[in-house]
This record gives sequence, C-alpha cells and structure tokens, in this order.
Amino acid sequence: MSKTRVGIINVTGYVGIELARLLCQHPEVELTSVTGRSAAGQKLGQVFPHLSNIDLTIEAKLGDVDLAFSAMPHEESAKEVIPLLGCGIKIVDMSADFRLKSAADYQTWYNFAHSAPQLLAQAVYGIPELHRKEIAEANLVANPGCYPTCSILALAPAVASGIIEPDIVIDAKSGVSGAGRSLKLGSLFSEVDEDVTAYSLDGHRHLPEIVQEIAALFSGNTPRITFVPHLIPMTRGMLSACYATLIPGKIAGTGKNLKEALKQIYRDYYAGEPFVRVVDSAPHTKHTQGSNFCHVYPTYDPRSGKLIVISCIDNLGKGAAGQGIQNMNIMLGIPETTGLRSPAMFP
Amino acid sequence: MSKTRVGIINVTGYVGIELARLLCQHPEVELTSVTGRSAAGQKLGQVFPHLSNIDLTIEAKLGDVDLAFSAMPHEESAKEVIPLLGCGIKIVDMSADFRLKSAADYQTWYNFAHSAPQLLAQAVYGIPELHRKEIAEANLVANPGCYPTCSILALAPAVASGIIEPDIVIDAKSGVSGAGRSLKLGSLFSEVDEDVTAYSLDGHRHLPEIVQEIAALFSGNTPRITFVPHLIPMTRGMLSACYATLIPGKIAGTGKNLKEALKQIYRDYYAGEPFVRVVDSAPHTKHTQGSNFCHVYPTYDPRSGKLIVISCIDNLGKGAAGQGIQNMNIMLGIPETTGLRSPAMFP
Amino acid sequence: MSKTRVGIINVTGYVGIELARLLCQHPEVELTSVTGRSAAGQKLGQVFPHLSNIDLTIEAKLGDVDLAFSAMPHEESAKEVIPLLGCGIKIVDMSADFRLKSAADYQTWYNFAHSAPQLLAQAVYGIPELHRKEIAEANLVANPGCYPTCSILALAPAVASGIIEPDIVIDAKSGVSGAGRSLKLGSLFSEVDEDVTAYSLDGHRHLPEIVQEIAALFSGNTPRITFVPHLIPMTRGMLSACYATLIPGKIAGTGKNLKEALKQIYRDYYAGEPFVRVVDSAPHTKHTQGSNFCHVYPTYDPRSGKLIVISCIDNLGKGAAGQGIQNMNIMLGIPETTGLRSPAMFP
Amino acid sequence: MSKTRVGIINVTGYVGIELARLLCQHPEVELTSVTGRSAAGQKLGQVFPHLSNIDLTIEAKLGDVDLAFSAMPHEESAKEVIPLLGCGIKIVDMSADFRLKSAADYQTWYNFAHSAPQLLAQAVYGIPELHRKEIAEANLVANPGCYPTCSILALAPAVASGIIEPDIVIDAKSGVSGAGRSLKLGSLFSEVDEDVTAYSLDGHRHLPEIVQEIAALFSGNTPRITFVPHLIPMTRGMLSACYATLIPGKIAGTGKNLKEALKQIYRDYYAGEPFVRVVDSAPHTKHTQGSNFCHVYPTYDPRSGKLIVISCIDNLGKGAAGQGIQNMNIMLGIPETTGLRSPAMFP
Repeated sequence: MSKTRVGIINVTGYVGIELARLLCQHPEVELTSVTGRSAAGQKLGQVFPHLSNIDLTIEAKLGDVDLAFSAMPHEESAKEVIPLLGCGIKIVDMSADFRLKSAADYQTWYNFAHSAPQLLAQAVYGIPELHRKEIAEANLVANPGCYPTCSILALAPAVASGIIEPDIVIDAKSGVSGAGRSLKLGSLFSEVDEDVTAYSLDGHRHLPEIVQEIAALFSGNTPRITFVPHLIPMTRGMLSACYATLIPGKIAGTGKNLKEALKQIYRDYYAGEPFVRVVDSAPHTKHTQGSNFCHVYPTYDPRSGKLIVISCIDNLGKGAAGQGIQNMNIMLGIPETTGLRSPAMFP
Repeated sequence: MSKTRVGIINVTGYVGIELARLLCQHPEVELTSVTGRSAAGQKLGQVFPHLSNIDLTIEAKLGDVDLAFSAMPHEESAKEVIPLLGCGIKIVDMSADFRLKSAADYQTWYNFAHSAPQLLAQAVYGIPELHRKEIAEANLVANPGCYPTCSILALAPAVASGIIEPDIVIDAKSGVSGAGRSLKLGSLFSEVDEDVTAYSLDGHRHLPEIVQEIAALFSGNTPRITFVPHLIPMTRGMLSACYATLIPGKIAGTGKNLKEALKQIYRDYYAGEPFVRVVDSAPHTKHTQGSNFCHVYPTYDPRSGKLIVISCIDNLGKGAAGQGIQNMNIMLGIPETTGLRSPAMFP
Repeated sequence: MSKTRVGIINVTGYVGIELARLLCQHPEVELTSVTGRSAAGQKLGQVFPHLSNIDLTIEAKLGDVDLAFSAMPHEESAKEVIPLLGCGIKIVDMSADFRLKSAADYQTWYNFAHSAPQLLAQAVYGIPELHRKEIAEANLVANPGCYPTCSILALAPAVASGIIEPDIVIDAKSGVSGAGRSLKLGSLFSEVDEDVTAYSLDGHRHLPEIVQEIAALFSGNTPRITFVPHLIPMTRGMLSACYATLIPGKIAGTGKNLKEALKQIYRDYYAGEPFVRVVDSAPHTKHTQGSNFCHVYPTYDPRSGKLIVISCIDNLGKGAAGQGIQNMNIMLGIPETTGLRSPAMFP
Repeated sequence: MSKTRVGIINVTGYVGIELARLLCQHPEVELTSVTGRSAAGQKLGQVFPHLSNIDLTIEAKLGDVDLAFSAMPHEESAKEVIPLLGCGIKIVDMSADFRLKSAADYQTWYNFAHSAPQLLAQAVYGIPELHRKEIAEANLVANPGCYPTCSILALAPAVASGIIEPDIVIDAKSGVSGAGRSLKLGSLFSEVDEDVTAYSLDGHRHLPEIVQEIAALFSGNTPRITFVPHLIPMTRGMLSACYATLIPGKIAGTGKNLKEALKQIYRDYYAGEPFVRVVDSAPHTKHTQGSNFCHVYPTYDPRSGKLIVISCIDNLGKGAAGQGIQNMNIMLGIPETTGLRSPAMFP
C-alpha cells in the first residue's frame, strides 16, 4: 500500500523546515511536495543543507497530496487552503486563520476581513489534549499558536477542576525563532543577544486564542486574562508562568499536602497523554528542545495564596510543527506518537 | 587634599570586579586596597587582565581605608565588617547581612543567627530613591539585592500613590552573573545556554526585602506579593514584570488618557532622579548594560484592569556595584552621579 | 529474536546522555543498563527529565550487556573496560585510552602509564571512513576525539591524493559541551558567553591522534601539524579550518577549474559515504547540530597558493556519540546508518 | 575656552552609536551634531534610549563642527567627506574609502571607481602604533578595518623584526556586530546563534589593507597572506590567530627561553603603547569588551616551527570607534588616552 502523500506550503520559514525535518523521518507518510515562492526551482538541500537527504525541488505550486500543511502567513493562508479543502485535501493550517471562532476577531486582532467565515465553525482548534475527538474527524485543523499551546496546557487542569479565580496572569517567555525568518531589526543577533524585553503590551494576537479556550473550560465564569510575552536570547524554547488565586477550600490540606493534591489534579487530567509530562520541579525549556513534549509544573505559594504553574515547550515543536504532526497523525488514524518519540536534544 | 581611600573586601567575584572597574575611573576616591582569599598575593591584573591598569596586589587583609565595600557572602560579611565599623570605617555591605530589619528573618530565610542584631536598626537600606537622607548620614549601608532594586523601583510610585490593590505578582528575569562566580552545575554554559527556567518557587531570599520596602510604602495595607525569578541565557541584565489590579477611580480617564496619567505619576515620583528613567515603550535590559540606570515603563491593560510595570537594570550595575558607588557618593558627600554617568554599552 | 543488549558506562556526562538519546530511538538494539557513580539509584528521567521515556535506573555496576560504551574519563576508562573485554563484551571506548598506538604517548600527553599497552595494537581507531573493515572485525573500538574527527575528515582526501605539502595548520573552533559537564571556572556561562579564546597553545591532547592518522595517509612524508583549538560561546558544534600549500602542478587547471577539480577529489574520496557531505559553500556548524553528519568544503586561495578546507560536525554527534553508534552498527553488522538518519536540528 | 566641536555622520549604525557613547564622556571635545537619514528629526534618545543623556536631535545635514567622523558606508562616505575637507574640517573616516593607497584596488575589491583618487596619498592609515606622527599632522585619517587592526597589531613586531617567513595564515573570528545594523538573513539571531561559519573564502575586502600594511613592514619580501574570517555567536569581540614559520636562528634559545625572547620582541615593540598589552597567556575577547585595548599573545610551537600570535580587540572599540577617538585625540593634540581609559566590561 502506498503511503499517504503530504505536502508543505511555504517550506522556507522556520515552521516549514521543522515540518520537513519531522516528516522526512515519519514512517507512515511521505513528504512529496514542498512550495516556496522566493526559492522555487531550487532543491530543498541547496537552500537548507541539513535537509539534503530530502530529494525534493521547491515548487511554486503544491503537487498532488492527501494532506497539506500550510505555513503561510495569516490572511494569505486561508486563501491558499480553501481551494485545497474543496478538492478533498485535508489541511493542517499552521497560521492563525482558522483558530478563532468569531470572524469579527480577525478584524479586531489581525486587521483583515476573513475570506471564509463559514469555515470557522467547522475548523477544529488543534490541541489534541482538549479536542482529540473533533480533530480525528476534521478536514481542517487550525494548529494553535505557540503561546496558547504552552499557556492553555498550563491552565486547563486548574480551570477545568474549578479551583482558581478567573483573574489570571500569564507571563510568557519565548525564543527568537517564534518571530520567524523574515528580516526585522528586532530579530538581529546584536539587538536580541544579551537582552530581554516584554512586548505587545497593548495586546498580543495570541490572547484571543487563549481566552477562547480557557473561557470554554470555565463553567459560568468569564476569565480576565493578562498576557505579557517576552523575547529571550535563545533560538528555541518557550516558558509560561501562570498566576491565579486558588479558591480557598477547593483543595484539601496545607503545605506539602496541598501541593501534592494539586499535582495529583494535574496528573489525573493528563493521565495517558503521551506528550504532557507533569514534572516534579521547575522545568527547563532545554529539556523539551527539538521535541513535542510539554513539561508542566504546578505549585502553590502559601504566602500569597496563588497557584503558580510553570510550563514549557519547544515553540517550533509542540508549539508548531510537532503539534502539527500530532494533529496529522490523529486526522489520518495513525498512532498519535508516530514520528514524534524523539527525546529532546540536551544539552 | 588627598582623595578618600576606598577598599573592596573579596574583589574576586563578579560584584567585586565590577566595583573595581567603576572605582578605578572614579575621580573623587582612590581604590587603595582589595582583598581575596584564594588569589591573595597576585596582582589584580594577573587574575583579571581587563583590570591591568589598577596597580594593586590582592591582599589577605584589608589595608587602611576610609570606606570599604564588602562583597563577601552573607553571614561572613557581617563578621568581616563589624570590626571595621568599630574603627570608624564607613561600610557599604553588598551582602544581605544588614538589609532586613528583623533578626528573625535571617534565621527564617538565610538559616543563620545574626551576629549583630543590634546593628540592623542602624543600617540603612541603600536605595537612594527611597532613603537618600538616611544614607547621607549612615556609616553602614546595606546595598539592596538586584531583584529588590528592580522590583521596588517598578512598584514604588504605584504603591505610594495608593492606586493599586495589595495583591502583587512580580515575575522577574535575571542574567546568569547574578548567580555569582562560584562553581555550580546550574551555572555551566551548556546547561544555561538556550534555556529558561523559573527557580526558588518555594520562596527566594530576596522576597523579604521586597516585602519590607513595599509594605512601608503601603498605608494601612499589608501587601501580598508573589515573586518568581527566572534565569535567562545572558550574562548581565534583569527585567521585572509587575502586575497588580488598579483600584477603579483612582486615576481619571480611560484608554490613552489613563495610561498617560499613570505615566505622569511615575514621572512625578522620579522627577530629578538621575538614574531612573520613565520610558515611553517597553524597555530592553541591553539599554542599561554596564550602567547604573533603571528604565521603568508603567502601563495598563484595560481588558483585565491590571497595572503592568516593566522595569530593567544591569544586575551588576544598579543591581549591585553601580548602586554601591551611588551610595558611597551620598555617604561621602560627593555629587551623586560622580563616576556613574557612562551610558549603557549597546549593542 | 531478542535485540542486542547495550549499556553505557557513566551515562551522566554529555556524551553519556547523547548516547542514551540516540540509543533509545535505535530500532535494532536495546539500551538495558546505564551506570553513573554520583547518581546511582536514581531513575534516568529524574536526573535528566528529557530522557523520562527511558525506563532505567542508574546503576553503580553495569548489568549484562552484549556491547558497552564507556564514557568514563581517560585512565579510568581502560580499567573499566579491560575486564569486560575479557568477558566477551564488545567495547566502544569514548575516552582516549585506546586511540594512540604508542603506549609512550600516554605518558607524554596524558601523564599516566597505560594499564594495558598490549591492547593498543588490537584496538581500532574508529573513524569508519578510514577504517571500516577493521571496525567490523573489532571487539574494541577507540572512538576518536571530536577535533581529530573533524580535522582528519577535512584533510584525508588531500593528504591521500598527495596534493599538499606536509606543513599543515589546523585552526579549530568548538562549542563548550566539548569541555564536559564537570565544574570548571572556564565553563561557567558568564565566563564563556560573549567570549572567544584559543587554548592549549602548548599542545592539545588531540594532536597526537591527528598526527597518527594523517601521517599514515602521507606516503613518505612526515607531516608537521600546527593545531590550535578555540572555545566558542555555543553549546554544540565544531568547525575546523585547515591550511596547507597545494603542490603546484598536482591539480590541473586554474581558478574555478582548479577549485572544481579539487572538489571532485573530495567527492570521489567520500563517494558512498553516508555521513560526509562535500558541500558547495562554506558550511555552518548549525547545519549539523544534533546529527551524525560532517560537512566538508575544500577550496583554494590563488593569491597564497593555499588549500583551505573547512569542515564541521556536532562535537557530541559525529564528534562523539553519533560516531560511537556508527561504530557499534558496523561492529554488530547492522546497516551503518541505523538510528542515525535524523537531519540536523535547524535553527 | 570653548571645546572642540565634533560631529558624527550617520550615527544610527553600531559604529555611530559607539562613537556617540564614547564622545559624550570625553572631557575635551563636545559632540554637537549627529546625522542620520531615516531617523532625522528624532531625538537621539528616542531612537537609542541608552543615549538619552545626549541632548541632540538627529539631523539630515551636519552642523558646524571642527572635526567629523563619517560612519557612512563605503563609496558614499568619500562623497560626504570631500566637501567637508574643503571647508577645513578634519575628518576621521570610519569607512574603507581612504584606507587603500591604490585607486585601482577600489575597483577590484569594492567594485566602484574612487571619486577622489588624489586624496589617497594624503590620507593617513590610522593605526597610531604604526603611523602616529603622520596622524598628528593629518586632516584626513582613514580609520582601519577591524580585522586589519587586530591582525596587523598581532603581526607587526614579528614582521618588523624579520623573524618570520613571508607565508602567513590569519584565521580571524568576529562577533556579529561587525556585520552592521542592516537587515540581512545572515545576521538574524536564529541563524547566527549556536553557529560558527567561515566566510568570504574567495577574498575578504579587509585583505588588501592587511597586505598593504604588512608589506610595508617586510623589508624586501612580498608577504603571501591567507586570510579567513569567521562569524561567532557573540555581539562584540574579535580574535585573530596568526601563523607563520619562524626563520631558524633569528631568535636565540629553545623552549621557554625562545618563547620568552619572542615575547620580549613584542614587549619592546609596544613599549609605551597605552592600548596594546602583551599578555602572558592566551587572551579572551571578553577582557577587551567595550574598551580600546588590544591584547596580544605571541608564542611558538616547537613541533612545527611555527610562530603563533593570538590577538584580540573589541571590534567596535579598538576595531572601530575607540581607535577613531584615539586618532581624533592625536589629530587635535589632546593626550592620546583621553576618554579611552575605561577598562573592559567583564563579565
């Protein structure tokens, strides 16, 4: 039997080449077509020597495939994938174009009128830990943003179990590859190296995703989320620190007992999940580097009454390409961990 | 007239050599003695080639000086400086040994019984922006920790003006030099590089300093402070993100007007301060690298009702040696900015 | 049929955990035992969370295995593996203990008397590109140093084809993980970050390996090799620049023709080699990060008459653990690329 | 008496802002005008918050000054400074436009026809250690490239004393700030971080400068120089390793004696030089960070008969802005070290 044919639209960005890296090692699908405007006509290995083993030419137009990843920028991605959907090609859209349920949000947050608002209801938000069943039946999966993936996985057990107040602070830190491969002053080595900064303090585009998913988990309450992302001088890796007041009496015990009970809530919530590890001490992004794992550490500050959850991922792994492959596996009925079992590269 | 003679106890750590770097350029004092146990007997320039211009031998015992900086570890520092105080030598203690007013806190947070609790009341906590007058009259100044300096300067105007609730989250990020020059697995390049982690989640030793100073600024209220430090893959630099709920009605206006009014509160509070800059956009640690400046950016999130203040310093500058020199200048009646006017090194 | 059982002696250093990372994904062998003194008794995943998928406890003594990797320090490694060899266990020794053919060299370069000089003749120097046949028949393979691997692969085609004078300069640059996981001032983040330095200018221990292998390829001539290593602020990666005078008339053509003919010599030499890529422009270490590939770029400077060869590897990949697995595959008769086909992680 | 007025043409690049940083602390001159095309009309402190202490607006056209630094790109710089020279303004040109004595070299290496070839003879190549007297009398000083500064200072004593063969290899390593502040894929953080590469293997533009100055020091011989630059993942810093065969018999002694005699040649050559330190062990770029110092370490490899010289500078300090200020001081008759005595920032 021939393998499922898979393609990547816009392979030349960091998400595109990470998808290619993972797909060329995947035993159940075959990467058969990659596109890219500026580099069209060149061999993939000419542009990216580390991918020389993949014998493909970068094309201007996607070839025949059964499933396509779109790594196009937002607004352009929707235009690219809508006709493919019409041809029966399954889509994992790495852009934001199908993540939000409300078309108006695209005007507000992305400043464009969505070209296919009718598809928003049909698209599935691709966090398998929350929406595995819908993903399995979907033709169009919106792969989540890196910040939402990291933050939602940190908060979901606490929100779903009703133990925290709805006033939540998310302080997130990201490596620079999250800013992509385009030329910006703020991505130059000499500007970023030896520097930390907060950004998008007037509202980051990943906030509505986070609100949408967290609100769905809160019963009755509307969460008030303060989200501040930071840029860190490293290439890959993302860490979120989430803060919320623990509702007194919801978890029995004090001190170590309370912390252990809290951790048990997290362990129960993620029982059986292959890519979420509830860890026993504050996690390091480097322990997830290059992998599809998310490490989550919940704890409690008895002085302030706050739940603190630290979570981390590789922003290009579970935060993008890795989760994209995970979604693909689910959509194709392949065992979910196929091609994704590699441990992180450490150090 | 001969210059004031200044010494550094334990010059061989990062704080010690940063003090030496600044003092050798200071026009009003003369660095005349430096000590260090392991390197005693060697020329300073042999151990630290960048300091070859300073013609001093590292000694086992401090020579005759008028003022001494102690860069000893906590517990040892107090023992070292107490006899010097008795000889009439002014002291800037870079360790934690005289920062806390309550002797019991040393048992709780540092696990030792303080050897001179009677001096705690007399010692002045050396943030000039809060305690300039007391510093001018002090013989013993406790130079603040880097996290407290960065966080207190971020919060003081908001707390003093009564505009925020007392439930405060401080999410801080520090370069690795803050961990000092001693050999620890967690300070190795290959462990820290390309990594971010939160640490001391059960309580960092800088928390009681922050609480002590912030509580003094709150009228009537006891603040509940959640403080989580992070380690960032860079040598120098510290950035704090502070979150608190703005009490409705305390600041007039909405949207941009409210943000501008908020900024004005900060500008007024720091009017005339030579080393605190209230900036117009989210600050970068690199814009303070090697300098004694603190950049503070207050803003407001209308979605969540939160005040957000981002502040940054060089942890070895305003967070340690720079502020030490600033304190020395005040103690000696020298113009406060002497020897500290250098802009940051960027990039 | 049960899989070949493999063990790692001293899993807790960077080479040890890289071996574990690669072996746990290897389809033809099973990692069944790992040892480590300080961490004995702990689960591998407790000490190294990224290896949580490997369900092994770190032991004090190696269990029953068919082949063992020794990642012990030199001098200790020989003592550890000699009894295992006697039990019929195949050995890939990651240390220097069996790399040199002359026992006297151990006294000169490593300052110890070799405990089993009779094994030196029997041990095979494990660069498959030079010694594949002997490796296939060996019970004891000495895995080469990282600098020798990178430099020998750069020079072998030029030396073997007789086109260069025997006066060779090798200027090599290494990431910090090559210094290992032990606590040294020179490995601290704040010392290494934003710094480059040359070291071991009085003679690096990898020099005799390089000389031994290059001398064997020179017919008649004794090479004079100047080798200067540098430390670079990055975790992984190694790049060698090799310089030698091209003997006039040995390669026909001038300008581009000569460069092309030179490149053809390299392509012919490495034809069929799965892990050496002769590339078309100056290579980047990052294009080999985490992989077992070596990228080699030979060129010619017509102004000075010099052959210049730039080569790069991941010092923990082809420079250590990757090549170790490659040697194991050959020793066990498994297809050589098994478990090693992953492309580099970029960016 | 009013201070000498100094201006910076094109302040917005890394060399421009480093000049501004140094000039604002210089006690004998006053920075009175800065220009920059894209940022014209903005306050310097708006664009570069670390320079907020400098109360200047970036102008489109240079104001009245006595001396100007041009930090324009090559080809444009000559056009900018020629009219200023005509007005009697002294010029320190940071570009390459007046470094080479042969107008034809501009066609060959920079691909443009020089607009004022008659000025090439009159311009002085601004390495004070070689051309101090001419600089003192010059109106136009061509500030050397960073690689030439670092390499020439490493080689000059050996060449001038006639102890080496004329076949020289220079393997140089530079931080990324040397590539400037313009937007290039190769300067992005995610591309450069954790990477080393060699570049310009077909000939770097700094080679003719090096050849010009080294040839002038060789009596009778024409040097054959192989120069290979590398890009290192750090912002500032440059290190050159220079290799040449020591002519037998030129230095008496063997082993340590020979090395000591060699070092003495270097010490004698640089006796009295305020910014060149002949150091006793392999230097670290970080020991020159932010300063105008050059550290030089000459040694000898008895196995290969090679002289090895390691030198390092801050590419923006002695490699650009620092040396520019040093040249200015000499041109204006100000003590040469004025404004340049700051030790390096370490760590």
